[in-house]
Amino acid sequence: MNVHAKPDTPSAADILLREDRDNIAVLTLNRPAARNSLSENLIKALSDAFDSIAQDGAIRVVVIAANGPAFSAGHDLKELTARRADADGGKAYFKHIMTICSAMMQKIVALPQPVIAVVSGVATAAGCQLVATCDLAIASADARFATPGVDIGLFCSTPMVALTRNVPRKNAMHMLLTGDPVSADEAARIGLVNRVVPAGTERDEAFALARKLATKSKATVKIGKSAFYRQAELGLAEAYAYAAEVMTQNMMTRDASEGICAFIEKREPKWEDR
Amino acid sequence: MNVHAKPDTPSAADILLREDRDNIAVLTLNRPAARNSLSENLIKALSDAFDSIAQDGAIRVVVIAANGPAFSAGHDLKELTARRADADGGKAYFKHIMTICSAMMQKIVALPQPVIAVVSGVATAAGCQLVATCDLAIASADARFATPGVDIGLFCSTPMVALTRNVPRKNAMHMLLTGDPVSADEAARIGLVNRVVPAGTERDEAFALARKLATKSKATVKIGKSAFYRQAELGLAEAYAYAAEVMTQNMMTRDASEGICAFIEKREPKWEDR
Amino acid sequence: MNVHAKPDTPSAADILLREDRDNIAVLTLNRPAARNSLSENLIKALSDAFDSIAQDGAIRVVVIAANGPAFSAGHDLKELTARRADADGGKAYFKHIMTICSAMMQKIVALPQPVIAVVSGVATAAGCQLVATCDLAIASADARFATPGVDIGLFCSTPMVALTRNVPRKNAMHMLLTGDPVSADEAARIGLVNRVVPAGTERDEAFALARKLATKSKATVKIGKSAFYRQAELGLAEAYAYAAEVMTQNMMTRDASEGICAFIEKREPKWEDR
Repeated sequence: MNVHAKPDTPSAADILLREDRDNIAVLTLNRPAARNSLSENLIKALSDAFDSIAQDGAIRVVVIAANGPAFSAGHDLKELTARRADADGGKAYFKHIMTICSAMMQKIVALPQPVIAVVSGVATAAGCQLVATCDLAIASADARFATPGVDIGLFCSTPMVALTRNVPRKNAMHMLLTGDPVSADEAARIGLVNRVVPAGTERDEAFALARKLATKSKATVKIGKSAFYRQAELGLAEAYAYAAEVMTQNMMTRDASEGICAFIEKREPKWEDR
Repeated sequence: MNVHAKPDTPSAADILLREDRDNIAVLTLNRPAARNSLSENLIKALSDAFDSIAQDGAIRVVVIAANGPAFSAGHDLKELTARRADADGGKAYFKHIMTICSAMMQKIVALPQPVIAVVSGVATAAGCQLVATCDLAIASADARFATPGVDIGLFCSTPMVALTRNVPRKNAMHMLLTGDPVSADEAARIGLVNRVVPAGTERDEAFALARKLATKSKATVKIGKSAFYRQAELGLAEAYAYAAEVMTQNMMTRDASEGICAFIEKREPKWEDR
Repeated sequence: MNVHAKPDTPSAADILLREDRDNIAVLTLNRPAARNSLSENLIKALSDAFDSIAQDGAIRVVVIAANGPAFSAGHDLKELTARRADADGGKAYFKHIMTICSAMMQKIVALPQPVIAVVSGVATAAGCQLVATCDLAIASADARFATPGVDIGLFCSTPMVALTRNVPRKNAMHMLLTGDPVSADEAARIGLVNRVVPAGTERDEAFALARKLATKSKATVKIGKSAFYRQAELGLAEAYAYAAEVMTQNMMTRDASEGICAFIEKREPKWEDR
């Protein structure tokens, strides 16, 4: 603990906890008194964690959880507001924050490992964006999701990038224009989360899912996750040309050879790095 | 009333009614005897109304309603058919109508204010397109939606542009290939409308939603709506670069400054132009 | 029957059955002992059938069905594995198969006639892709859908191209990363199939739908299906410019003239080629 830190401002080492359970990295947002808002330090801590995990051969799945009643309240408004005193009214700083936050979100997409959000409480603004950005999401039945920037004069324009790539257009627009929260059930219905589970069981469910994914071939998951987001931005003919090449390369890997043989021989496959 | 007009052909001033309730502009399609079909004059009246509202600083939200049992039956087939007598068989006129109708629809997207469709009865073909094009839509429980052009040999190709940007692919294809109507509940399930309410309450519900949106910062809503449709057409990295810039500009506005301060001080914000 | 064929390897003529019922072409995958896996010969047989149907003026709708307990298990893993003995480890062959399979899928999209999948049993990997690729799909209540390539070390990267163009992102990612099957009801909920019907009635329901589509104007359906997939890859302004041109051309066809007249005169239309 940094002695200069205020009680509700843990040091960089404390605002994001990382615990590895076997080959699952659990990142826990740990600014509960600040509703896990994404301060500059927390954005950097997440970004650094993703950089580290991307290089960590032992990690097969990432779970993003949070301490306290809120999953994340989005950007740290006090931190942003303090910079209005800058010579440029804060503009350079705001640009810096929006840029590093967008870069951090894209690191989740670029990460070779799947990332699962486990949501208790409310996920709002950039906190909702974080959930939308994860590959998969499990929500407690009492979780709620909102993009309420419109209510503070700051439309959730970066969160909408992730939101609209998950949720049908009119549902996304309603969340963005009204700022109203949607329930966990509604979030599942519109595609923002995969599953809703009884409150209190969401972490267990997320870990069960993470453990299942951890049994898969790491090389194969990496190939597939990367191809998923790449082909999504291509036209149909281009996407097929690209995916056919990916499949061919995938077929030449050791794990495809082993996996297909094991399937034909009706036995469990032994993946390369287990 | 134009004395040359037939009884079921009100003048341009009458075929589209505009009533401003405080800062909500209510546009009412008013060709009930023609099932509110989108004649050349009605397309122009809508287009002119959107041009006017776009410049109208007093208007914060637009509601599109309709008089009579149908919301809108789409293009005016009698008007189109009459032009088959033209020297070119009507081709230039058909092109003109399709072009001005598509331009009118895109004016809804370009409008700085949010647009809410309130649907009673049936919305078919370009009438269904109009609902899909609005930012939000409230439907009466007895509303129905269809793209039945296939049944008259004229596939709903322009309506499909709006439909497929709201509705999953196979659901859209089913509507387009069969021409069969979908219920209001099904329309909500597939994302064509936001909410279904008991028949007779749809206008009240739409106004309640409009009044809620009218309390938001106008400048912020304008920024956000514009960014919504723009980023939807970009790849992920481009969308984030664009949205981060939008957020930065938004932060520098008076309303973001006021809104964030009010939030921190736990008071109601006072928007710029209220 | 090819005398050299193994009992479970019917000749090219037998592995894909074609039966024309009036103007509906029914293609039936007929490798039940191999779970209708898409061997090179079956891919070619499908591809040839689509080429033939595309030129067949008598055919208005295509139904793809399957014999045996599985709709299709995807690629033929034994056939692929046998080529690991090739000098290049099979790479050229794998590329060949992925390329002709992707081309075959795109022929469904390019076909002027609508294509309906009727799914009994399980549709996995490229079998699931085949369902996703069809314009419409009817599922038996006991049908199931999966993209389990991850479990054999070969991520379903080509199936994901079709899957992600039908199904919300997180639902698609869950299927791809877990390999877990989804029920017919879940498949309908997420947009992978249009309807779920009681087991044993799926063919009747698919034929009823096919017969309905067969009553439509063939020229109109061709225009609309082609425009559907083309506009889906364009930005909004481009899509509208394109669709307005398509509508204009469509208006100039004989069937639009007849269909609109028939509608105005409240009589049944007589399409060009009936």
